[in-house]
Amino acid sequence: MKAIRLRAPGGLDRLEQVEMPDPGAPGPGEIRVRVHASSLNYHDFSVANGAIPTEDGRILMSDGAGVVEAVGEGVRGFAPGDHVVSGFFPLWQDGPAEVGDFRTVPGDGVDGYARETVVRPASWFTPAPKGYSHAEAATLTTAGLTAWRALVVDGGLKAGDVVLVLGTGGVSVFALQIARMMGATVVATSSSDAKLERMRALGAAHTINYRTTPDWGRAVKDWTGGRGADQIVEVGGPGTLEQSIRAVRIGGHIALIGVLTGRSGEVPTALLMAKQARLQGLIVGSNRHQREMIRAIEANDMRPVIDRSFALGDLAEAFRHQEAGRHFGKIVLEF
Amino acid sequence: MKAIRLRAPGGLDRLEQVEMPDPGAPGPGEIRVRVHASSLNYHDFSVANGAIPTEDGRILMSDGAGVVEAVGEGVRGFAPGDHVVSGFFPLWQDGPAEVGDFRTVPGDGVDGYARETVVRPASWFTPAPKGYSHAEAATLTTAGLTAWRALVVDGGLKAGDVVLVLGTGGVSVFALQIARMMGATVVATSSSDAKLERMRALGAAHTINYRTTPDWGRAVKDWTGGRGADQIVEVGGPGTLEQSIRAVRIGGHIALIGVLTGRSGEVPTALLMAKQARLQGLIVGSNRHQREMIRAIEANDMRPVIDRSFALGDLAEAFRHQEAGRHFGKIVLEF
Amino acid sequence: MKAIRLRAPGGLDRLEQVEMPDPGAPGPGEIRVRVHASSLNYHDFSVANGAIPTEDGRILMSDGAGVVEAVGEGVRGFAPGDHVVSGFFPLWQDGPAEVGDFRTVPGDGVDGYARETVVRPASWFTPAPKGYSHAEAATLTTAGLTAWRALVVDGGLKAGDVVLVLGTGGVSVFALQIARMMGATVVATSSSDAKLERMRALGAAHTINYRTTPDWGRAVKDWTGGRGADQIVEVGGPGTLEQSIRAVRIGGHIALIGVLTGRSGEVPTALLMAKQARLQGLIVGSNRHQREMIRAIEANDMRPVIDRSFALGDLAEAFRHQEAGRHFGKIVLEF
Amino acid sequence: MKAIRLRAPGGLDRLEQVEMPDPGAPGPGEIRVRVHASSLNYHDFSVANGAIPTEDGRILMSDGAGVVEAVGEGVRGFAPGDHVVSGFFPLWQDGPAEVGDFRTVPGDGVDGYARETVVRPASWFTPAPKGYSHAEAATLTTAGLTAWRALVVDGGLKAGDVVLVLGTGGVSVFALQIARMMGATVVATSSSDAKLERMRALGAAHTINYRTTPDWGRAVKDWTGGRGADQIVEVGGPGTLEQSIRAVRIGGHIALIGVLTGRSGEVPTALLMAKQARLQGLIVGSNRHQREMIRAIEANDMRPVIDRSFALGDLAEAFRHQEAGRHFGKIVLEF
Repeated sequence: MKAIRLRAPGGLDRLEQVEMPDPGAPGPGEIRVRVHASSLNYHDFSVANGAIPTEDGRILMSDGAGVVEAVGEGVRGFAPGDHVVSGFFPLWQDGPAEVGDFRTVPGDGVDGYARETVVRPASWFTPAPKGYSHAEAATLTTAGLTAWRALVVDGGLKAGDVVLVLGTGGVSVFALQIARMMGATVVATSSSDAKLERMRALGAAHTINYRTTPDWGRAVKDWTGGRGADQIVEVGGPGTLEQSIRAVRIGGHIALIGVLTGRSGEVPTALLMAKQARLQGLIVGSNRHQREMIRAIEANDMRPVIDRSFALGDLAEAFRHQEAGRHFGKIVLEF
Repeated sequence: MKAIRLRAPGGLDRLEQVEMPDPGAPGPGEIRVRVHASSLNYHDFSVANGAIPTEDGRILMSDGAGVVEAVGEGVRGFAPGDHVVSGFFPLWQDGPAEVGDFRTVPGDGVDGYARETVVRPASWFTPAPKGYSHAEAATLTTAGLTAWRALVVDGGLKAGDVVLVLGTGGVSVFALQIARMMGATVVATSSSDAKLERMRALGAAHTINYRTTPDWGRAVKDWTGGRGADQIVEVGGPGTLEQSIRAVRIGGHIALIGVLTGRSGEVPTALLMAKQARLQGLIVGSNRHQREMIRAIEANDMRPVIDRSFALGDLAEAFRHQEAGRHFGKIVLEF
Repeated sequence: MKAIRLRAPGGLDRLEQVEMPDPGAPGPGEIRVRVHASSLNYHDFSVANGAIPTEDGRILMSDGAGVVEAVGEGVRGFAPGDHVVSGFFPLWQDGPAEVGDFRTVPGDGVDGYARETVVRPASWFTPAPKGYSHAEAATLTTAGLTAWRALVVDGGLKAGDVVLVLGTGGVSVFALQIARMMGATVVATSSSDAKLERMRALGAAHTINYRTTPDWGRAVKDWTGGRGADQIVEVGGPGTLEQSIRAVRIGGHIALIGVLTGRSGEVPTALLMAKQARLQGLIVGSNRHQREMIRAIEANDMRPVIDRSFALGDLAEAFRHQEAGRHFGKIVLEF
Repeated sequence: MKAIRLRAPGGLDRLEQVEMPDPGAPGPGEIRVRVHASSLNYHDFSVANGAIPTEDGRILMSDGAGVVEAVGEGVRGFAPGDHVVSGFFPLWQDGPAEVGDFRTVPGDGVDGYARETVVRPASWFTPAPKGYSHAEAATLTTAGLTAWRALVVDGGLKAGDVVLVLGTGGVSVFALQIARMMGATVVATSSSDAKLERMRALGAAHTINYRTTPDWGRAVKDWTGGRGADQIVEVGGPGTLEQSIRAVRIGGHIALIGVLTGRSGEVPTALLMAKQARLQGLIVGSNRHQREMIRAIEANDMRPVIDRSFALGDLAEAFRHQEAGRHFGKIVLEF
């Protein structure tokens, strides 16, 4: 069985493809999955380049999708041949968040899905959406569920809400699609007019080039007639948060997801207070959230936007493509 | 100014068209509206036929849409020429329900909109959706808002939810459209295959003829793989409630709207308990709910389904058409 | 090991005390518990008297409290010597209700706690409140958690709310205590002035003898200045529901728990609708709910009201005491 | 009629007591109130010292309590002789927050209650709690309602929750009292051991001197067995927010109220995200919130903690006492 391991202390030149022993038959409660795809997230990149330190030899990647090959004793809801997709927090099945670290996350605290075969508890997976390719399914674990959680679980999205998405990475494109699926109005920002054109093609009602409109918070407010956005999917972090606070409506909701611009920074707290807005930190979601998202995806035949596909052995190259930042939507691995 | 008044003790032969004095200029906080349309609801019918007793000479109809002719001192948010639509509970502006009777409802406790011109506080209206005809706008006051409140406000609808609607009256067709607008899956019942065909054309994923499938509660459960419907828009009342309780999922939501089959009846309370389901009584909604619904309608260009239009003077005939029960969607008055 | 089994088809004369083999050492994820107490609920009674059919030889009782004797491999959060209390739905750990039957409930679908020793997954238990006797702890599994779920989880209780409790059984007395612990105002009904006196001593602000005031729904409304109760803990079922609907405020919450007066009956659905009230079916709660309740109990040193204690071998006599209906609070078994 | 006006551009030496004409009889919908008390908040102080610029001649103070002297036409719910207390946002009657500035706030955007008599719409007031002195009632408008909104409305407080309050100002002492009224556990911080002693006397379960324990965020986490506080009433702002984020549990709630340490500052956003915590900006609350708080206060006879009382003419001296920061609870004006 092939796998991609990361040698400490990390770095894109320290990924190595290895042969590993077959994981064998599933024990009680477990399933054996032939992994066919994964997808790249900023968190995977941070592990790979060593920014998030991990154990020597860690098998990378949080996202995994494939086919059940065998089920252990007592497993219900999965059968050989089923297409499945992994969960980001394998132990968070239901209820409110209780996890504040990555110790149980595949590809970080434990071995991930950059491997051909895996045996894990069945509860670490959900069924994949019917009709999805493995690559499509793999995009859901982290990016898809983050967008769903932000808008639907935490944000209580409803038709007519104005949703602001920042940039055109995986989470933001998913957020646009989910918002459109539920009848919301989307405003999108990017530094690239070409990408904004694509966002409009996907249903964005309004787009803003933040390079040419650095005061985009006000631009959002103006476009909404002074009201502001109901919800913001804040993937930027401290570097964009001030503008997001300017953009949000009184009593609105900012989903704080991103660390792209840093882990700490100046925040206009008095403005957040005056806006009576909610800044909600979140990391992905639970097994239940994933199942509910998949039900919605199936009912609406929503399809993820895939930027480019790489082979398992080309993972380092895939990360470099991600780092270059010219992608739109999800970068995937297929194997 | 023409108006339709109801002579006590009611009855469709006791509607009379009268000439009334012009209501004059609006006072502080008021607007003067040229009413151009209304629409018929079961509640209007119950007032008209005397089932709900009202004052002698009451001007009928809760729904009203038209054009602002003048605004009084201190009015904000309305200007002459604006298209507006009336609210069902004029005094319920925001917050949780505090009204449990019809004393303030136009066309019941106070005079309604079966008239050419009216002067009322501006807060009794909201703007109509952009691009709507007056007839379309008039359908929102009661039927549209009831469906929105049931699914979105009380039910917290999200994409992927399964919504069951009973019959093809105004509220049920609106519920189908709102559910589809938000990515939900709709199951519809009717005794007419032709009407079910129309529900499928509007987006229902599954339909059940309750005449040929009297155990439709089980049919819904079966169609959802044993899970049941997430939400049910219960317009029938005691005569359909048992099947609805059978149809709902564990922990699901039944919006109790209807009195079509009576005001009281046998209910399997132990089953409701075992289902851990919520039976939520509701009557229409607030001014805020109406504005939020209209925002959603505008963002998605949702259009009401209008069955047939009558002139103001033909109101009795319109009620007879409603009573016959062969309509699909809303019956309107235009004048 | 002693246990009380029920011979099919049930009946209080068909309980038999038996000697059973010791359950042995706990397997992975399991704990071995020396059970010291249980408590009686209407559900246990219905199983025992055969109204709810169960397997021949079923070990009775849903509630169990005792001491951990040994923990299996991989168990976290429990250690030998810990005092623990059982959960009603052992598989419902967290999140919304997904159970609508009793197939997994100890003392009904599976063997219960009328036994001296048991080996079960650790997740079937929670820690008992610090300082509680086993008898006190055992009252929480069903009655305590039902009251907590009704008021706090479903009802969103807050200080100042008016809570109506019906009768003086286990759930109702717990509801009074929880409501008082959170600063709510309690109104209680009973047919016994002596019991109402005890309810006042426990903090009820107002009491109503429903024998002498059969229109107690109106009495509650009047006592609240016409507003009605915010929440009602409806343990009666169809026989009391009409008065409860009369008693509840516009937009209020009725927790539908009881089947004391039957499993089905006439309900004034139009009145429920006009009240815009919520009738929420529920059965007990999840492991998380139980832990949260216990945290509240510990923080406030709330103590259950115990009516009388019986030995394990006197279970049939205990049920007869329950059937007589003269108890106040919980009847327990200690062994 | 005496009043205290502020001469532009503000400063404690620019308060002047003036004689003003009597406001006369109430118009339709208005009430005339003889004001007997007010109380001091940080917001009043910021207006008075010119940090928040206001119109020349502004009558100061947001909080006002007194006796209704006359009611205008159409006023319901108020009668001469009633004791009343003012609302902070007079136009925010119900529903979600829609106000993000102080343009309608008495004592800032409009004239306030540092005056003997006022005529205002009845909706600008609520009844005062029965049995309260005017000084006690006046403390509720801003400080009391802020604490109630933070914990109960936004935070969904329940018994057993751990609430962290920072310092011993008006909001923090109210938060302690409300938390205790609802069965929550309170942890309090201060730089003064004497004040912490008083907090314990009021029911705080644990106290931390932040001078001697600068890493008080960790201290809170440790005291809760590693879990963290469920809710934090963050009156400090950017200077304390990092420790608050350390102190809060995964998925917990931080009510962002304060600007005591500045209007903007460094915030560890990645930690807020990892904690999956909610940072909720808020400013006081609505008329409905105030009525619900008062109902809770009456049901539990909760009494505000008053530090010291000043005469109307001594307002500048009262502000200096506030500025010195040695008070505990509320500083009031009585006249």
